[in-house]
Order: sequence, then C-alpha cells, then structure tokens
Amino acid sequence: MTSSTYDDDRKHVFHSWSAQAALTPLVVNRAEGSCFWDESGRRYLDFSSQLVNANIGHQHPKVIEAIIEQAGKLTTIAPFHANEARSEAARLIASHAPGDLDKVFFTNGGAEATENAVRMARLVTDRHKILTTYRSYHGATGGSIVLTGEPRRWASEPGIPGVVHFHGPYPYRSPFYADSVEQEGERALAHLAEVIALEGPQTVAAVLLETVVGTNGILVPPDGYLAGVRELCDRHGILLILDEVMSGFGRCGEWFAADHWNVVPDLICFAKGVNSGYVPLGGVIMGPKVADAFATRPYPGGLTYSGHPLACAAAVGSIRAFEEEGIVEHARMLGTDVIGPELAKLAVNHPSVGEVRGLGVFWAIELVRDRETREPLVPFNAAGPDAAPMAAFIGACKERGLWPFTHFNRTHVVPPCTITVDELREGLAILDDALTVADSYYTG
Amino acid sequence: MTSSTYDDDRKHVFHSWSAQAALTPLVVNRAEGSCFWDESGRRYLDFSSQLVNANIGHQHPKVIEAIIEQAGKLTTIAPFHANEARSEAARLIASHAPGDLDKVFFTNGGAEATENAVRMARLVTDRHKILTTYRSYHGATGGSIVLTGEPRRWASEPGIPGVVHFHGPYPYRSPFYADSVEQEGERALAHLAEVIALEGPQTVAAVLLETVVGTNGILVPPDGYLAGVRELCDRHGILLILDEVMSGFGRCGEWFAADHWNVVPDLICFAKGVNSGYVPLGGVIMGPKVADAFATRPYPGGLTYSGHPLACAAAVGSIRAFEEEGIVEHARMLGTDVIGPELAKLAVNHPSVGEVRGLGVFWAIELVRDRETREPLVPFNAAGPDAAPMAAFIGACKERGLWPFTHFNRTHVVPPCTITVDELREGLAILDDALTVADSYYTG
Repeated sequence: MTSSTYDDDRKHVFHSWSAQAALTPLVVNRAEGSCFWDESGRRYLDFSSQLVNANIGHQHPKVIEAIIEQAGKLTTIAPFHANEARSEAARLIASHAPGDLDKVFFTNGGAEATENAVRMARLVTDRHKILTTYRSYHGATGGSIVLTGEPRRWASEPGIPGVVHFHGPYPYRSPFYADSVEQEGERALAHLAEVIALEGPQTVAAVLLETVVGTNGILVPPDGYLAGVRELCDRHGILLILDEVMSGFGRCGEWFAADHWNVVPDLICFAKGVNSGYVPLGGVIMGPKVADAFATRPYPGGLTYSGHPLACAAAVGSIRAFEEEGIVEHARMLGTDVIGPELAKLAVNHPSVGEVRGLGVFWAIELVRDRETREPLVPFNAAGPDAAPMAAFIGACKERGLWPFTHFNRTHVVPPCTITVDELREGLAILDDALTVADSYYTG
Repeated sequence: MTSSTYDDDRKHVFHSWSAQAALTPLVVNRAEGSCFWDESGRRYLDFSSQLVNANIGHQHPKVIEAIIEQAGKLTTIAPFHANEARSEAARLIASHAPGDLDKVFFTNGGAEATENAVRMARLVTDRHKILTTYRSYHGATGGSIVLTGEPRRWASEPGIPGVVHFHGPYPYRSPFYADSVEQEGERALAHLAEVIALEGPQTVAAVLLETVVGTNGILVPPDGYLAGVRELCDRHGILLILDEVMSGFGRCGEWFAADHWNVVPDLICFAKGVNSGYVPLGGVIMGPKVADAFATRPYPGGLTYSGHPLACAAAVGSIRAFEEEGIVEHARMLGTDVIGPELAKLAVNHPSVGEVRGLGVFWAIELVRDRETREPLVPFNAAGPDAAPMAAFIGACKERGLWPFTHFNRTHVVPPCTITVDELREGLAILDDALTVADSYYTG
C-alpha cells in the first residue's frame, strides 16, 4: 500500500540515524493513549512511548486542550519578554524539582539542555573538564554528542575539548569485577574518585550523569552511588549535573529520578516527559548557586524559542494532569506491582533473558545467547546480519501488535506512564510470546 | 505594575543572553498581525518580528487553524514513522527550494540546522574544515556557536576544531579597502580564494554563509559574489551551505534569499520564517549530492522531535498562506516601494545615519558619530555606559510605541512580511522622530 504521505516521505523527508534507501516507514496519523494506528488501521500497543517521550500517553485531552487554548492566545513571543504560559511552566517545574532548584532555562529539547548545563557549569566554576559516563546518551549537537558515551558519538569526533568518559555502575556487566550490586556501587565510586584525582579536581567543572541511564540500558544506580557522587563533587567544588531528559517526569515513578535517592544535583536537564513532546521543549533547572553567578554577568547562551509559549502551555497542561490524575504514583505502582513481578517471571521462563531491571515504567530486558557467559544476543553496536536475532524478535513483537523499544541486545519496557494495567498485561503477554523467538537463538 | 506572570518570571525564568538581576521584562500575552500589547494594554508596532522570526505576523489565522486542527489529530510521533503533516511540509519546502534541493531533514531550530548541515558536509566530502565568515551568527549549540563569527562565540571557546573564519563583503566598512561595491565583491572573492588556497582546498568540507548576513548587519552581498563563491566551491569540490534561518521565507522578498541571485547551494539551513516560530521548527534542505551519500550509509545524527507533526502542520499552514496571499511578493514590494525610498530620506535628514541597506523587509540603518570617519554611534560590542546612545535611541522608539531590533550601532527594519503599507509608514515616522535622539550624539 502506498499513499501520498508515504510517497512524499520517501521523496522529501530525510530521516534521523538511518540509511535512507532501505527505509519503509509506517504511516502514522493517529494515536491515542497507549496505542497508535498505521494507515491500514492496524493498532500497535506503544511499549516505546515513541522515543520514550510520550509519558502522558498520546493525545491526552487536557494537554491538547491547553495547546488549543494557547494557540488561540499567543503561540510565540521572544525570550526577553515575560509570558503567562512561560512563567507558569517555570513555576510548576520548579515546584516539583528537588531541593533548592527553582529557576528554569528553557530550550527546544534535551540536546540543548545538556549543552547549556555544561556551559553554565564551566562558567560558574571557571573550570573546563566535564566528566561523564560511557554507555550514555546526551544529545546529538556539537556539545552534547561529545558528552555521549556510545557509538552515536564516533562520527562527530573530534568535538569540543575537555570531555572525559568514565565507567558508571553496571552490575550485570561490571567493569569493576564486582560480585554484588553493593560492591558495584562502591567500586564505581572509587573509580570516579580516582579519575577525578588523575584528571585534577581543580580542572573539573562538572560530573554529568543520566540519573538512570536510558537508551544504553536502563542502568539503575546502586543505592548510595548518587549520594556518593554528590559527596565527591562537594568535596572538590565540582557541580553535579543530572540528565533527566528520559528519566524525569514520571518515568521512574517519581517527578525526577533523583527523588528516588533523595539526591539534589546542581543542574537538572529535562525534555521529553515535561510535555510528552507534544510541542518541542526542554530545559535546565538550577538553584541559586548557578543562577546567581549570572546575576550581573550576562549568560552567554540563548535561542529564538526559549520559553516558547505554546510549548510551555503544553507543559502546564501536562503537569497539571499529572497532579490531578496521580500519574507519577500510577507509574510507580505499575513498576512495583506489575512490570517488576511480570518481568521476573519472563526471566524464569525464557533462557534468553539474562537480566531484567528497572523501576517505574522504565525497564530493560537484557537478552543473551548464554546465561553463564552473558554473551549478548547480538554483539555491541551490531548492524546488518549480525543484528538478525534482534530483528527477528522485533518483527515478532510488531506482528503481534506491540511496538517495542530496542537497543543493541535489549528490549525496554517503556510504555506511557498512563498505561492501564490491562494494556500493560496485554503487552507483557506479547513480549512473553515474542521472547520464544529470542530463545531460538540461545546457545547456552 | 506587577502580576503573578511578572513575579513568577523573575523568580523562576532564566533568560537568554542576559544578566538576570537587572531584567524588567515586559509581560506580553497578546499579539496580532504586526503589533503586540503589554499587560497594561500598551501597543507596540513590531519592527523586530520578535527575533526576526514572525515573518507571517502574529497569530495569522490560517496558521493558528492549522495548529489547532493538527493538535486534535496528532501532535507528535517518532521521526522514524511517516506522517501526513511531515510529508506535506517537506514537499512544500522542497517545491520552493532552489535547483535540485528536494529533501528535508527537520530539526527544532536554526542551531541544529547548521549543526547538521556541517555534519553532512564533513561526511559527504570526507574533509574536516568549515570556512565561515566573521560578523555572522549560526546558533548557540556546541557546533553552531563555533561557526558564529561574533562575540557571542567567545565564552564557548575552545569549541569543535576545524572552523576557519574569513571576511565576507561589507562595503560600508570594507576589510579590503575597496572603494565601490563591485570592487568589494571582487576583493572578497579573491580573499576567499586565498584563504582556501592557504588552508588547503582538499581539507575544506564546506563554505558556510548567511546568504544575507542578518543580526550582524544586514550585509547584502554584492552582485556576483555568491555566484563567485559557488564557482570557487565547485572548482575545489567544496560544498556551499547557505544559512537562510533569518533570510529565508519571504524576509528578502524571495522564498530564499539565494533566489535573488539565482545561486543554488548544496545545503540550505532554515528555521524561523518556515512557520514564523509558531511551533519550534528548523531544518536542512539538500539535493541528491548530499542525500545519496546516506543512501546505504546511516546518517549519524538525529533528534526526538525531527519532523514534529505539530510544527510541520504550522509550516504547511504558513507556506500555503504565503502562496495564497502573495506574501513573498508583498515583502518584495515593501522593500522596493516603501522601505528603500523612505530610509533613503532618513539618510538625507539625519546626520547620524551613516548608511541604509537591505532588501525585502530586511534592512539596516547604520548609526555613526561622524559620517566622514564612519565612527559607529557606539563601539563594537558595547555594553553599559558605552552603549548609552543606543539605549537612548531604543528608549525613544519604545516610548513612541515602536519595538525596534537593534544590534551594536545599528537598528534594523525587520517587521513581519505581512505588515501593511500604513503600519510600515507609521513605524518609519516613529523611527524618523527617534533618530533625532541618535543625532544628538553626532559629533561629526
């Protein structure tokens, strides 16, 4: 089946992160709640929240209403003016931010958020280096791609100087030869302390972490790790930046993932879940330590659409719906009562499931060829024939009406925070079924 | 007067490019056509189009309608799907793009557009250096800020390697000691040819230019300059990237400023006027030379909101309104029949007017202390007391109900492309009046 939408896409749209010739995109013009439909009317249960952004689900009526109302009032105004939607979005975001973080610099998305957080940290500390982890993603602009600790960075190197990558905790594939989660946390802290010492603490502006690592594996930090990083930063006058672009706004069953461990960073980067991407929006939340450094010295950064009224109105509509409908609490419950227990069962029943991990509606199933060696189902950064087992698994999900989020040898369970228990169980049953395809590649 | 909007702004909003303590932003919740109103109901004629983005004017009903309609259908979907609004926006943009440029990679704004154009040029040519001009602005992200050729870059250095700045033509303050516009164009080409030779042509991926330099002076290239650059690029296998973020979509009385000289670049960067910033949107337009390089090799760049349906629907609504209402032609007429002749009169009547220049609705008035020496009314990059004469001029405009766009020693005449002749004459009369304040600093 073709349509003018499909044909014009192939003729005129250049797609992200892809070889263009072989693309056969699905035409999607309809979505609602936890589902979307293709042109033929085929329904997909969205276990991806698209790119883990549709936290409130698709076309939530309160957010749509907020957009329509603001569109009739004022879509855009320059960043140097004050605007009702912008002020209210900033106030609401600040009201849910941890500790003394109370001021928001708005951007169009997550990449610009990390760009500006890093710029702020460098200027506030008058230091240059940024320490950030391997197995992370922080955006694809010139500054943020260099912070990124995975293969998407490679084509953009050499990039801005002063970025140093270190190892974060990853208990299942410990870079520290740890044999428990506790030991992984301790050794990861010792590793960071050593890297700081060897880089020179007085040269380090900030440590940047995804609070819970997203695309690169839903790596949940061991208890005590984030507090330990906070302490290391404080000891050396280093700022702590938490990238909550994917982990924030309900995804981890908290407003911000940092709340799960009661850690207060100096800067938080957000985007995606702030308004579920209904209108592009991101930003940086800061406390007085950062904001006051720019009280009399001009901040050297900006963008035409900073604090965009339509985008901010969508954030206001979304945050109010989160509050009214208890969406954060619902997401937490889904993790503890449904996803956690159900994935544990999958791990028992499917040999190819090496590990399941996560919290809230932010879970990974790590697929392996062998549980003993933990050999991944497909190699790191696999493409083409090497990636065939994952392609077969993805195909099995889609055939059964489930749209998965996959990365390397993992499938993530990242539906909207608003998904119902029934929908969630429907999706998990499909996963259960599709995992038999992954099992067929098991060699252990 | 204060309001909760104002108070929450001061408490919770961190503003672009500013020292935060002294800000007293205007509260703006209403705009229409070429005007906006503050909270007290005071009307401002918008000679800035905000940040030179509201090309279609404020709250154009056809664009608002397109946004509202799309909001009810589908606000967002991941970039890897195809979507009706995205396909149609790409088709329409391609239909107005010069030459064989027919494929669009969508971003959230202009900075990401230049980021991606440069990434594409480097990968297509397998060369590293980017040549770009002093007195330019290309965005504030890690890659784009380093391309920028003015003081906003300084705080973000050192940045990505491989960027070389050269001098573009600027007849009024010729870096080449030219004594005519023609000679300026010739010498600027000779300068670029020499820089290419000295940098090593085989190391140069692209030459990046604002087709008509925007914020840094509305520098209109002499006839023949762009064609000469195109020829130089072709001779050496270098790609030509034109940054039309500010100059495109009617601003210069053409769909793209490049059309004024019938030059076809390899890549065009756009944002702002594509949908007047009603929803954040930007992108890169390319022809087969670039797109085909990523037919089988994956393009290593992307973003969550690439080809955002709501943003694309606003572009579709705006481009159709441009077509139906002859907005490009109107902008061209305003330049030739009204702004050009009227600014020429101001230049005769006000000693502080050193030069007026521009096309379409994209004009600069360069203010000087002395017409002989051409000493600027305020020094380059002036702040605080040094900038007092411009501050006085700006105050005089605002008191009279005109919101100007100023930069250094210049005021730009950059109203919406849809401004009526009467509104335009009203604004020009205010400028005429306010320029007496600039004249009072004249020492020549």
